[in-house]
Amino acid sequence: MTHDEPSIALLWDTFTGYQRTAALKAAIELDVFTRLAAGAATIEALAVQCQAAPRGLRALLNHLVMDGFLTKDGERYGLGATAATFLDRGSPAFVGAAITFIANPAVTEGFSRLTEAVRRGGTAIPDNGAATPEHPMWVEFARAMAPIAAMTAQLLANLLDVEQVRVVGKVLDVAAGHGMFGITLARLNPNVQVTALDWRNVLAVAEENARAAGVATRFRTLPGSAFEVPFGDGYDLVLLPNILHHFDPAACERLLAKARAALAPGGRVVIVEFVADDDRSGPPDAVRFALVMLAGTPAGDVYTFAEYQRMLRNAGFERVTLHELPPSPARVVFAEH
Amino acid sequence: MTHDEPSIALLWDTFTGYQRTAALKAAIELDVFTRLAAGAATIEALAVQCQAAPRGLRALLNHLVMDGFLTKDGERYGLGATAATFLDRGSPAFVGAAITFIANPAVTEGFSRLTEAVRRGGTAIPDNGAATPEHPMWVEFARAMAPIAAMTAQLLANLLDVEQVRVVGKVLDVAAGHGMFGITLARLNPNVQVTALDWRNVLAVAEENARAAGVATRFRTLPGSAFEVPFGDGYDLVLLPNILHHFDPAACERLLAKARAALAPGGRVVIVEFVADDDRSGPPDAVRFALVMLAGTPAGDVYTFAEYQRMLRNAGFERVTLHELPPSPARVVFAEH
Repeated sequence: MTHDEPSIALLWDTFTGYQRTAALKAAIELDVFTRLAAGAATIEALAVQCQAAPRGLRALLNHLVMDGFLTKDGERYGLGATAATFLDRGSPAFVGAAITFIANPAVTEGFSRLTEAVRRGGTAIPDNGAATPEHPMWVEFARAMAPIAAMTAQLLANLLDVEQVRVVGKVLDVAAGHGMFGITLARLNPNVQVTALDWRNVLAVAEENARAAGVATRFRTLPGSAFEVPFGDGYDLVLLPNILHHFDPAACERLLAKARAALAPGGRVVIVEFVADDDRSGPPDAVRFALVMLAGTPAGDVYTFAEYQRMLRNAGFERVTLHELPPSPARVVFAEH
Repeated sequence: MTHDEPSIALLWDTFTGYQRTAALKAAIELDVFTRLAAGAATIEALAVQCQAAPRGLRALLNHLVMDGFLTKDGERYGLGATAATFLDRGSPAFVGAAITFIANPAVTEGFSRLTEAVRRGGTAIPDNGAATPEHPMWVEFARAMAPIAAMTAQLLANLLDVEQVRVVGKVLDVAAGHGMFGITLARLNPNVQVTALDWRNVLAVAEENARAAGVATRFRTLPGSAFEVPFGDGYDLVLLPNILHHFDPAACERLLAKARAALAPGGRVVIVEFVADDDRSGPPDAVRFALVMLAGTPAGDVYTFAEYQRMLRNAGFERVTLHELPPSPARVVFAEH
C-alpha cells in the first residue's frame, strides 16, 4: 500500500529489511524456535542449548520480539503463533528450512547486483546464474522447499480429485526437484506411475523422498535438461511445477509443445506457478517473484494468464483454464491435449 | 508486534526482506524517484532517463508500488508521499544516500555472518570489521549519513538553545564523521569554535561540509584515534555523537574520563545515541541497532540510560540527564563536569 503521509518508518524498515531476513535466518540456523518450544525460555538456558553467547542471543531475541516472532515476559521468551506453527522443527507445518534456499548466496547474489540487472533487463550474475546444468543451488532448493511443496502438492491433488480419478496413470514431473508433486499423486493413488525429470544430482533428493513416501517402486527418473532429454509418451499428466518462469515465452512454447507430444489423448498439462494479474501489479507473491526472476535469470518472468493462454495455444493446446489453490499463493493452469 | 494467528505472510515478508532493501537501493542508484518527480511517468520514459531496460524497470517499479513507495494508475507511475519527501534528490529532506551506507557491503557482511556472531557474541568479520584505522567505510558513512545527521544536529541545537547561549565557545566533536553536529552549532552561533576529531580520510569530508556551511575559519581538525590523540582542554561542549555504541563499557568509561578532563569548568558532554529502554525490548530503532552492533563490532552495543549513568559516574560526571529529540529516534544524554 502507499502511505498518504511521508513515513520515515517505512523508509527505515525497507533500508534495514535485509537485517530482518538475517535475524530470522540466524535463529533458524541456531534452532532457537525448536529450543524455545522444548522449554528453554531464558537467555541462559538457550545459550547452553544453542551453543551461543548470551550477549549474541540477547540482541537476536529482542529483534525477533520486535519482528513478531517471539513474545517476551520479563526475562522469559516464548514463541508467537507464526513461529510455533512454521519455525519449530517439531511442528508438522515446519517450513523454516526454506530460508536456506531463499537467502542462499546463489539467490542473494542476484539481488546484490540488482541495479545492473534492471539496467540490462536480466540477471547480472556471470554465466547466467543458476541456469547451468547440475547447478548445486537446485539440490539446496529440493531439500529446502520440499515441506512447502508438499503442502502445495496436496492442494493440487485435491484440485485434481486424484484419489477418485482412476484413469490417472502415467505422470511426467518435469523439473521435479524434490519430486513432491508427482510423489504426492502416487501416494494418494496406487495407479500412478511417476517419471521425474531433473538434473541427476537433484533427482537423488527426489528418490529419497519417494522412498520415504513408500512409492519408490512406482517412481523412475529421467536425468538431464527438460529441453534435451526425450520425454517418452502416453502420459495422462505432464506436471510443469515452477519451471516455466525461468524462461522466455519462446522457450516456454518449445517446452509446452514437447509436453503436448508426450501426452496420451485426453491427457493434460498442469502448470503450477505464481500467475500475475493482467496489469502485473498483483498478487504480491507474483510481484515479488518477478523481481526474483529478473535478479537471477537471463530471461525468466512471472507470466499473466493471458500470456499462458497464448503460449499454450501456440503449442497446440485447447481448453486452457486457471485455478486458485488456496491458501497457497500458487495458481494452476490446466490445458488439454 | 506478535500476531495471534500464524501468519505465512509475516514469514514470507521476513524471508524476502532483503529483496525489498535491494529493490529500494537499485531504485535510488538508478535515480528512479528523481526522474519520476521530474515528470517521467511511464516505463518507456524512465528507460531513457535512467538508462535501464523496460523489462527490468517493469519488475522493479511494480515491486516499489507493492512496497508503498510508488503509485500506479494504468501505465503511469507516480511518487508516494514517502518517496516524494525522502527519495527525490530535489527534495530538501532527501535522505536516499543513506542506503549506500546502510546496505554497504562492509555492513551487510556482518549480517551475512550473523549466526556466527550470535554464537561468539561479537562480529564474525575478520580483523574486527570497521574498527580499524582509516577504514574506508567511514568515509562512505560521512558522505551518506550527512543529510540525516544535519536534521538531528538541528534538533540538538534547538535542545541546547544554542543561538541564545552566548557562553558556548569551544566545542570538541569526537568521531565527527561528516562533522554536521559541530558545524551546525557553528553555523547557528558565531562564538562557536569547532575542533573535529576523526580519521584523516574522514575529516576531508567534514572539511568540505564546513566550507559549504561557511564556517571553515572556525573549524579545525584533529586526525587520529579518539583513544590516542590528545583532546586539548577548555571545551564548553564535548560532543560524542554515535561513537560510544562501538565499544564495551570499560572503553566507553576511558573515553568519557578523557572527555571530562578536556572540559572547562561548567562544561558538559553531549552523547547522541539510540538509547535502549531498561529491558532492551524497545524502542524499535534501539533494538534494531543492537543487532547491527553485534553483527559488525567486537564488543559494541546499544546501552540503556542506567548504563550510561553508571559509565558517566565512573568517569567522574555529575548531573546526568536524558532527553528526547523528536521526531528523530536519537536520544541525548547530558552530563556535567
